[in-house]
Amino acid sequence: MSDNIEAALQSIFSADSGIYQTRGFQRRVGFGRRPALIHIDLANAWTRPGHAFSCDGMDVIIPAVQRLNEAGRAKGIPVVYTTTAYAVTSGPNTDMGLWHHKIPVEMLQLGTPEVAIDERIAPLADEQVIVKKRASAFHGTYLSSFLNANGVDTVIITGVTMAGCVRHTTEDAIAEGFRPIVVREAVGDRVPGVVEWNLFDIDSKFGDVEPLERVLAYLDELAPVERDESGSPVSA
Amino acid sequence: MSDNIEAALQSIFSADSGIYQTRGFQRRVGFGRRPALIHIDLANAWTRPGHAFSCDGMDVIIPAVQRLNEAGRAKGIPVVYTTTAYAVTSGPNTDMGLWHHKIPVEMLQLGTPEVAIDERIAPLADEQVIVKKRASAFHGTYLSSFLNANGVDTVIITGVTMAGCVRHTTEDAIAEGFRPIVVREAVGDRVPGVVEWNLFDIDSKFGDVEPLERVLAYLDELAPVERDESGSPVSA
Amino acid sequence: MSDNIEAALQSIFSADSGIYQTRGFQRRVGFGRRPALIHIDLANAWTRPGHAFSCDGMDVIIPAVQRLNEAGRAKGIPVVYTTTAYAVTSGPNTDMGLWHHKIPVEMLQLGTPEVAIDERIAPLADEQVIVKKRASAFHGTYLSSFLNANGVDTVIITGVTMAGCVRHTTEDAIAEGFRPIVVREAVGDRVPGVVEWNLFDIDSKFGDVEPLERVLAYLDELAPVERDESGSPVSA
Amino acid sequence: MSDNIEAALQSIFSADSGIYQTRGFQRRVGFGRRPALIHIDLANAWTRPGHAFSCDGMDVIIPAVQRLNEAGRAKGIPVVYTTTAYAVTSGPNTDMGLWHHKIPVEMLQLGTPEVAIDERIAPLADEQVIVKKRASAFHGTYLSSFLNANGVDTVIITGVTMAGCVRHTTEDAIAEGFRPIVVREAVGDRVPGVVEWNLFDIDSKFGDVEPLERVLAYLDELAPVERDESGSPVSA
Repeated sequence: MSDNIEAALQSIFSADSGIYQTRGFQRRVGFGRRPALIHIDLANAWTRPGHAFSCDGMDVIIPAVQRLNEAGRAKGIPVVYTTTAYAVTSGPNTDMGLWHHKIPVEMLQLGTPEVAIDERIAPLADEQVIVKKRASAFHGTYLSSFLNANGVDTVIITGVTMAGCVRHTTEDAIAEGFRPIVVREAVGDRVPGVVEWNLFDIDSKFGDVEPLERVLAYLDELAPVERDESGSPVSA
Repeated sequence: MSDNIEAALQSIFSADSGIYQTRGFQRRVGFGRRPALIHIDLANAWTRPGHAFSCDGMDVIIPAVQRLNEAGRAKGIPVVYTTTAYAVTSGPNTDMGLWHHKIPVEMLQLGTPEVAIDERIAPLADEQVIVKKRASAFHGTYLSSFLNANGVDTVIITGVTMAGCVRHTTEDAIAEGFRPIVVREAVGDRVPGVVEWNLFDIDSKFGDVEPLERVLAYLDELAPVERDESGSPVSA
Repeated sequence: MSDNIEAALQSIFSADSGIYQTRGFQRRVGFGRRPALIHIDLANAWTRPGHAFSCDGMDVIIPAVQRLNEAGRAKGIPVVYTTTAYAVTSGPNTDMGLWHHKIPVEMLQLGTPEVAIDERIAPLADEQVIVKKRASAFHGTYLSSFLNANGVDTVIITGVTMAGCVRHTTEDAIAEGFRPIVVREAVGDRVPGVVEWNLFDIDSKFGDVEPLERVLAYLDELAPVERDESGSPVSA
Repeated sequence: MSDNIEAALQSIFSADSGIYQTRGFQRRVGFGRRPALIHIDLANAWTRPGHAFSCDGMDVIIPAVQRLNEAGRAKGIPVVYTTTAYAVTSGPNTDMGLWHHKIPVEMLQLGTPEVAIDERIAPLADEQVIVKKRASAFHGTYLSSFLNANGVDTVIITGVTMAGCVRHTTEDAIAEGFRPIVVREAVGDRVPGVVEWNLFDIDSKFGDVEPLERVLAYLDELAPVERDESGSPVSA
């Protein structure tokens, strides 16, 4: 993005923020007491070059996710990954629904390396990898009931794409009753501008956009999750 | 079930039906124009002996499902299977939610032969096998949006168990706006009585319980699904 | 119900319980730390005589709900009521979906006294009365996100009907990740037998059926909900 | 918005579209055969000046909605309105969930004139007005099952706000399996820029943004909905 365009966007955001704040928008939802990490679509089709779904900025996003995982796992919080993949990518019985009428999801075949989580941020054996069919990590999946059964009240969101799955997931998160925290350095997309304006919209209305260092500091200060013998959190 | 007990159940059903019909319950939802077949949990843990989840009556259920598949596939209608399976069957990160606190779902490990669909009624390559985590085939899955994108208005339901997943799926089906038809000979369970009383409740309030021959006759008379080049049904 | 039929049902339940327990079913989900009371369809059409939806047993159910409310309100837990009512009860634009094809929901007109909560158990000004369109209190409503935002982990369920809305609500509750406790004396129906067999199915697979006195003892021992200035529970 | 900023946005959109089209995004989902009109939050708090939720552009939006209603009603298609309103706007039992931690939804009290649909586009007696609690018209409401039971395959979306409820509704619509058509002249917001970039994101990934005249032409050419005596559409 050129400096001119960046300046133009900042100029709109500034004007809009003036209106929002006068009217009582752009509040802080804040961190809760029981977070989970939710990594959206950090699978090879998105994190590696050369694919229709490839995104930019992985030199910053991947290390940010590594640090978040290290901090979160140290406290025993749930770490959840999503990928988007389809069992049937042609014909009437497809699980793509209508989405292939807008974007090339027919390239995301279940069981291929492209839709596997990037090994640089590989899930541990007991961490959930949810295969979703739509943009939101919540839509048509067990994510909400998983988090609910686990006593989670806050979702720390990373991944791609900002204009698609990250945005829809964040909107659904607060709708479901989870505090959404979007990590500024850990989200990305494949076209210029959309990260900026979607973070702006989210921070104005749906969740808090926070810098990585602040999220790490929050995780570092968090008490480890205590669990009873059945695995249920004690303080939930 | 002894004859005495069977007679007692029939006696209750008869008395209850009198009340229901006086009050305007036990209506017929009827068959629609665009059916799909939904086979609930006809995987080996349920269809073969020797498992905690094993069910009775497979000598009748399996042939019934075979005939339904043959009739439905001849008309190009969607055929959907479900199984219940978990990626993480112990510890705090389980996808079992709270259900293992009631029933032994920790025995249903994703990727094992036990949770694969019984090969006597094997899905075709382009038929959906939905892995669900809860009793209902709709809960936390993409089934509703799959059916909706496919123009389906009627779900013909088979499988097990009647007191669990078949019942909950049927209730959700009419709630979602699909006409539920439960095939009497194609549903089962693992304990006596529950098939009878759950079919009674369903037929009274949630869907139509129909004999296999009537469902086959409906499928035989159905016009084949016409689709355009994108796979979308033409008449939807 | 005659003694013979009651004996027959108990005989089936006993035989089934033997099988269930051998196989590891009929476990206890137990009480959690943050309950809510959910009263299903205790509106006049169900609680008063003379309506197609009238149920039996209100001489026991209403006092039980009164005692639960008193105990729950003393601890500041959420109390939620549902009713079932429709804005448009004829024609193509009805919000009844397909349900009027099974039961006479066209008699439940939004805004009439019939669908108002029975004044003997009237909600307080700040208690939610959720108007639902389907059997489950969760389906197509904000109940799950309300409970989730409120930190609730357990739902204590009362009301009617056992074979319809109470059953479906209980199934959805555990699916969503809430511990369902069904209060034996506080649930009912309009035809004989269905209370017994639905409580049996639920206790075997979906939630714990508990006597009123035990639920009251649990509520009495509960620590009052502490909240911060925003109304959020402190311990969630 | 100044000409400079408008030019900057168009410059980004143009660059992004180049990338999207090279990669196979920005496809057309197209109109289906069975549309419904969905008007998002065109209630007085949003359509009239002087409220925290007031939006701009009603001199264009209201006439556009009037024309769409006239065209749609002439063909007997469903017309659905939403509003956002809360029964309890303070304290722990609020139905606002967590949303008041971001935006001033405590100003939207159920039953007040502010949350009633603007009388210039008043619903007919048999048209649904859905009270939602979250941004999406689908979240926690019966909209999906209403549309599904009605055989709808396409949702024509109008209203406000573009950065909030219209965006989230559109994302959910395609996720649920409905073809989303957003009417360019019939959507708005309260801050500059957000209409443009959200329409851009939607048209790239989630639904088709179409000019009013094209949507009106589609409705004019549509065959009237034929219904059987029960109100069910004949061709569904």
